[in-house]
Amino acid sequence: MLSIKLKAHEERRLRAGHLWVFSNEIDTGEGFRNIAAGSLCKVFDSRNKALGVGYINPKTLMAVRMLSSNANADINVEWFVGRIKSALALRERLYPTPHYRLIYGESDGLPGLIVDRYGDVLVVQMSTAGMDALKPVVIEALQSALKPRGILLRNDVAMRETEGLPLVVEEIGDVPDTVEIDESGVRFEIPLKTGQKTGWFYDQRDNRDRLSRYVRDARVLDVFSYIGGWAMRAHGFGAKTVSCIDSSAPALDAAQRNAQLNGATLETIKGSALDMLKQLRDQTRQFDVIIVDPPALIKRKKDAEAGLEHYASLNRVAMQLLVPGGILISCSCSHHLELEQLQRVLLREARTANRRLQILEQGGQGPDHPVHPAIPETRYLKGYICRVV
Amino acid sequence: MLSIKLKAHEERRLRAGHLWVFSNEIDTGEGFRNIAAGSLCKVFDSRNKALGVGYINPKTLMAVRMLSSNANADINVEWFVGRIKSALALRERLYPTPHYRLIYGESDGLPGLIVDRYGDVLVVQMSTAGMDALKPVVIEALQSALKPRGILLRNDVAMRETEGLPLVVEEIGDVPDTVEIDESGVRFEIPLKTGQKTGWFYDQRDNRDRLSRYVRDARVLDVFSYIGGWAMRAHGFGAKTVSCIDSSAPALDAAQRNAQLNGATLETIKGSALDMLKQLRDQTRQFDVIIVDPPALIKRKKDAEAGLEHYASLNRVAMQLLVPGGILISCSCSHHLELEQLQRVLLREARTANRRLQILEQGGQGPDHPVHPAIPETRYLKGYICRVV
Repeated sequence: MLSIKLKAHEERRLRAGHLWVFSNEIDTGEGFRNIAAGSLCKVFDSRNKALGVGYINPKTLMAVRMLSSNANADINVEWFVGRIKSALALRERLYPTPHYRLIYGESDGLPGLIVDRYGDVLVVQMSTAGMDALKPVVIEALQSALKPRGILLRNDVAMRETEGLPLVVEEIGDVPDTVEIDESGVRFEIPLKTGQKTGWFYDQRDNRDRLSRYVRDARVLDVFSYIGGWAMRAHGFGAKTVSCIDSSAPALDAAQRNAQLNGATLETIKGSALDMLKQLRDQTRQFDVIIVDPPALIKRKKDAEAGLEHYASLNRVAMQLLVPGGILISCSCSHHLELEQLQRVLLREARTANRRLQILEQGGQGPDHPVHPAIPETRYLKGYICRVV
Repeated sequence: MLSIKLKAHEERRLRAGHLWVFSNEIDTGEGFRNIAAGSLCKVFDSRNKALGVGYINPKTLMAVRMLSSNANADINVEWFVGRIKSALALRERLYPTPHYRLIYGESDGLPGLIVDRYGDVLVVQMSTAGMDALKPVVIEALQSALKPRGILLRNDVAMRETEGLPLVVEEIGDVPDTVEIDESGVRFEIPLKTGQKTGWFYDQRDNRDRLSRYVRDARVLDVFSYIGGWAMRAHGFGAKTVSCIDSSAPALDAAQRNAQLNGATLETIKGSALDMLKQLRDQTRQFDVIIVDPPALIKRKKDAEAGLEHYASLNRVAMQLLVPGGILISCSCSHHLELEQLQRVLLREARTANRRLQILEQGGQGPDHPVHPAIPETRYLKGYICRVV
């Protein structure tokens, strides 16, 4: 196996538990650039002390991701099965039905690998050259540990391009177009092949659970609804009316099917979220609970200013649509937006609207997306539940 | 009414929604020092624009706390009833039984006032000279809004001393020695007059609810148990065994009564938390879930280093007592300990113990302790639910 040596003192991040090595931290000899992307490698500090085993991509800034702190670990099917079973034990403890994120990359000790479980169908994403190179081993391990009926490889995530990987979707075994899951007693039909990302946003499940105390008899508006996750959960908790805004017609069609599945009447509004919110305002519509849960509006640091303004506008108009004492659930999944920034945006908009804001709850991603305490990047989802007085 | 003028530009914090004015921000004329502590005052910016009404204590650094942004507001019984009813509307939405923090100071627009509700008994705390001066008005408003059987004034909090106030406990009406509350179906007998603080820690209620997915059939250890809040909730969710550590014999006696109330068998261990944890370790005892929920170990900034070391020691030994894959719930209510600091402590101790840590959930104070988005000081409780692999 390839050996990689770090420059002096550059082992500190790994010693603190992080799993990444940046290319400028490696004592590159000649030939470094020629290492095949995705090769397994042993990593040593500048004094030749072994730090563990990882995989390397010499073409990316984030050059090495560690798989094990045991430099002699054999990264084979058995090793993967061990990691998968550890992840599985946690999820089985957390959830009554087999519907969850089973593997969340670095946080489950498997950098570059995402696995979502929909009962006996798995949706898998390999975002790095190193994990992509291990594909046959990963698939065999998943089959051994879970005996799935089908595996859908959604290897069409943009990040793969920076790793020099093609964007491909593959099916292994029997992968249906849709699967049905159960979320706290509410049924959802998930479009696996045509849906966003891996099909469903398991990361918001715990936060959707929290709707229970806020939505009874309420008029609820789900902005950026996708296939109606928040709206249907609100219906399940006794909302009086549920409305969805989304720009995608297929998403709203799927939301309507989910409404039928749960015996709900759903209003769908197709269009850009901000425009539709303004239209509702012009119609003097009012809501008791509004959920603003947009996709990442700040994808790169340079988008920060425009993105922040977009968050502000959305929340501003949402506040205008709320009855006094109404509940605003405001989320962001932008890595580049800090929790405090979102709070400042909400505060500023409330002040401008001469409303008093109380932050009742602060939520993050669910526990099937554990945070790795040494890797801040594994924490991305932020949400506030606020009362607007 | 007294008028107070701010120095140039010192109105910015109030304009952003904060409610405090520090003494060095006030354009003090002669006689400032002679203002009676607790007087109501109108507050103006340097250009004589009215900013609202508050109360003042010229002897404290935090000289003015704002009550209303309407400078003409009449701070009378009716005004208090309005604020109390707004707070009540939120709590009635949140909880099925009348057991909660009803008023949480600044966050409910009532700086210096805390009210905990135990059914028809209220426990009230006035921590500032301004709120203390309004005592008759507050009491009348509470009686008008809630018709309580009794009010216990626990005006024995240390902060009153910095405000130049005496430490006193008073009873109004019929205040029993103990009250019984219901928390998600678990019964607790609360010692009102001899208990810690206002008797019960409502702020952890939501976090105790989260035990549900972690404690079934588990051996659970509640460190700094007080009267057994976490332990009894764990029993309610099907824990196999529950154990409490506390240094107070009366607290452990009350915990035993709560165990009886709920048909539980409870092991109590009296002593210093760290010593008792070490003793359990020496006995090679093991637990599946451990809750470390100490009182504020960092009371002042200068205690930060020693306090941090205390948090570290407690969590270190707790990790040693956990089975592989066990759950550590680690909390801090120290204002001066940042959430990230607690995370760093946990990470460091896990690394030292050669364990892998996954942060599953991150919790704060419950929604009956809302956070005021302009006043970071209103957020104080931090907690992590971690799996230790």
